[in-house]
Amino acid sequence: MKARVFVTLKTGVLDPQGEAVKHSLASLGFQGINAVRQGKVIELDLAETDPARAEASVRDMCAKLLANAVIENYAVEILS
Amino acid sequence: MKARVFVTLKTGVLDPQGEAVKHSLASLGFQGINAVRQGKVIELDLAETDPARAEASVRDMCAKLLANAVIENYAVEILS
Repeated sequence: MKARVFVTLKTGVLDPQGEAVKHSLASLGFQGINAVRQGKVIELDLAETDPARAEASVRDMCAKLLANAVIENYAVEILS
Repeated sequence: MKARVFVTLKTGVLDPQGEAVKHSLASLGFQGINAVRQGKVIELDLAETDPARAEASVRDMCAKLLANAVIENYAVEILS
């Protein structure tokens, strides 16, 4: 079973990587970019075959390691 | 209009961040993790209102800056 975790900075948390990308795109001539935020995507290949148990396990991984709940949000997607 | 770009390493390209996450999860007691790959997600807020033009513009950004086509794949998602 595959799972995907999206980890993004919470609104209001400074995102220097996103700002750098925004400025680079502007200097390459791309216009009309209001904001850029950069986050992480973590793809997991799990031996678990039950979707509900896989999701519970991945949420536990997020809480314990993958995301910093103080400054980051996360979303879990179970793929197949 | 919002767009999301997923940038992931191509299959076969060594992913030290993913390996580090895999080992950390194992040492926290999570079992049955076959593989972990880590990539980037870039969220763009664009002034463009036409979905087709927004997607073309974002694909151009990927080719020029956001992804390294030699070692990375990218996927574009237009949100609203």
